[in-house]
Amino acid sequence: MPRFSIEQLTELGLSIFRAVGAPDNEAQIVTELLVKANLTGHDSHGVLRIPEYVRAVREGRIKPGAKVEVAAETPSTASINGNWGFGQVVATRSMEVALDKATNTGIGAVGVLNCNHVGRLADYTMMALAHDMIGIMVTNSFPLVAPFGGIDRMLNPSPISVAIPTGTAKPFVLDISTGAVAEGKVRVKMRRGEKVPLGWIIDKDGKPTDDPADFYRGGAILPLGGNLGYKGFGLGLFIDLMSGALTGVGCASSKEFKGGNGVFAIVVNIACFTPVERFKERVDNAIQAIKLSKKAPGFTEILIPGEPELAEEERRLREGIFIEDETWRQISATARELGVATTLDG
Amino acid sequence: MPRFSIEQLTELGLSIFRAVGAPDNEAQIVTELLVKANLTGHDSHGVLRIPEYVRAVREGRIKPGAKVEVAAETPSTASINGNWGFGQVVATRSMEVALDKATNTGIGAVGVLNCNHVGRLADYTMMALAHDMIGIMVTNSFPLVAPFGGIDRMLNPSPISVAIPTGTAKPFVLDISTGAVAEGKVRVKMRRGEKVPLGWIIDKDGKPTDDPADFYRGGAILPLGGNLGYKGFGLGLFIDLMSGALTGVGCASSKEFKGGNGVFAIVVNIACFTPVERFKERVDNAIQAIKLSKKAPGFTEILIPGEPELAEEERRLREGIFIEDETWRQISATARELGVATTLDG
Repeated sequence: MPRFSIEQLTELGLSIFRAVGAPDNEAQIVTELLVKANLTGHDSHGVLRIPEYVRAVREGRIKPGAKVEVAAETPSTASINGNWGFGQVVATRSMEVALDKATNTGIGAVGVLNCNHVGRLADYTMMALAHDMIGIMVTNSFPLVAPFGGIDRMLNPSPISVAIPTGTAKPFVLDISTGAVAEGKVRVKMRRGEKVPLGWIIDKDGKPTDDPADFYRGGAILPLGGNLGYKGFGLGLFIDLMSGALTGVGCASSKEFKGGNGVFAIVVNIACFTPVERFKERVDNAIQAIKLSKKAPGFTEILIPGEPELAEEERRLREGIFIEDETWRQISATARELGVATTLDG
Repeated sequence: MPRFSIEQLTELGLSIFRAVGAPDNEAQIVTELLVKANLTGHDSHGVLRIPEYVRAVREGRIKPGAKVEVAAETPSTASINGNWGFGQVVATRSMEVALDKATNTGIGAVGVLNCNHVGRLADYTMMALAHDMIGIMVTNSFPLVAPFGGIDRMLNPSPISVAIPTGTAKPFVLDISTGAVAEGKVRVKMRRGEKVPLGWIIDKDGKPTDDPADFYRGGAILPLGGNLGYKGFGLGLFIDLMSGALTGVGCASSKEFKGGNGVFAIVVNIACFTPVERFKERVDNAIQAIKLSKKAPGFTEILIPGEPELAEEERRLREGIFIEDETWRQISATARELGVATTLDG
């Protein structure tokens, strides 16, 4: 399994996206966020997407250089048409609009249409941190998750990310799906020939199963919560309605939904509610109290959302990023087709 | 167990709250929402609270007639000081402010300080429905829930309510805690001498238990999600930071937190993002597709958030509201102390 530095992967990504026609600033945004996903341990959202994105550009589904337009706006909201540009580019610009609105009026919200796969939501919510603001983003996409009491795929795992600034503590960065699990984790288990824990998925008849292949034979992911799955289902449907019905892209279960991600984001300007320094002190104190509290049997540490990714980032900055042979083979093939040199020796 | 009509309970509640010094409009808001909680099946938030509220008024913790003040505002946000009035009054006025802001700028957000127990969050988020807006509310209070990997009480069950308008479908009304369960449900099980399902609570040593008494002997409620409880914990901490750190009341785990509820609410004006009729059509279609989808073994119906409460409301409107003898005894005693006649024969 070849190992690469950030710089090597970044250079390669930039060359590939430029070669396929992406303007320089777009190649930079997309490459940076894909490499960042690898860095934080979310390989499913990392450079393994390069061949897929290149194919999408060639097939006209991703349109490099597409104008990101504000289709409608009020002092605090905007409906943004991404015109099927790179998802990372559209989501970044959309978040900038939300940040501007929140700067002016205390809170900003954007709904995003015609947007390709945006990758990790945390990359966008974390943009709010440097502005001493809170970033919130939800998305929908094709359905994979059964409703509570059902067995058909009706909802996306409906992820939500929230980034909240801190003082001395590491930033609070939540980035979770409201399904039991993201599809990528089921796929990894299947490729490795491993079972999945009961409670992740059901087979096509709605029976609990630990065989990941059952998901791909017409099964579905379960909502978060087990016996209390009506809560995960309720949160998932809420997220689908915000990122699908409100943005206008359509809900996960509808024929109206065309692909990519429906995106809804909110930015909250902390200073409009409470002095920023007092806010950060309260967040620091809450995090410290929780981290110092008694551990459950089998636990040595209580992790705050965002901590696992930061630890992984520190490790990979030291050790480099490992790419599976098959993924590297596909990226190399894509590079060769585009006449991009891949002298990386791994 | 005596049974009462809405009118009987309303008349009694109004008389009691007027007798304890509540202005007429406040007595009406508080009584209406307590009776509404019974009507929708949430007896733990219903008229059983009357003796508790009367005691709080007498002890100066609830201040009838307190002015609800906008302490700071921007075009889209407000920080609201409830001055320790009735929680229901403060939350209702706060939601009216958020609705006004959303009418003007597309989205409104309010943080609420010095607010007593507000009761059911759905009562406030549902205020947005008649305006073709989406209502979202979160609250915090004293800690009862352990963090994922911990055993001390560090978070409130951190409830969230979301109300979303529909066309022909019944409104989407989510109102859940992000803990495995609300404390009231544990108490009911204990009073009835029943076990609780494993996964709701742990005992003081962090061991899973089905004995509800273990919670009251220093145990804690678990976060939503079981093995995936880091998700419920993350959502719960997010809600604590919004309703505690951002509003200024303090987080659940802090000494700064003085009681009642920290409240944070957002109202989203649908028309600023997409035509309202198209929005409702999308929501109706999503709900219909889910309800018509294949049922899991053991289920005859897939329930959308809000449906169980509506069904209970229809039933209780026909059959009346049952009050347990002990609860009725306490309410009657409170009424007698205030010189209010309780000729209700049950």
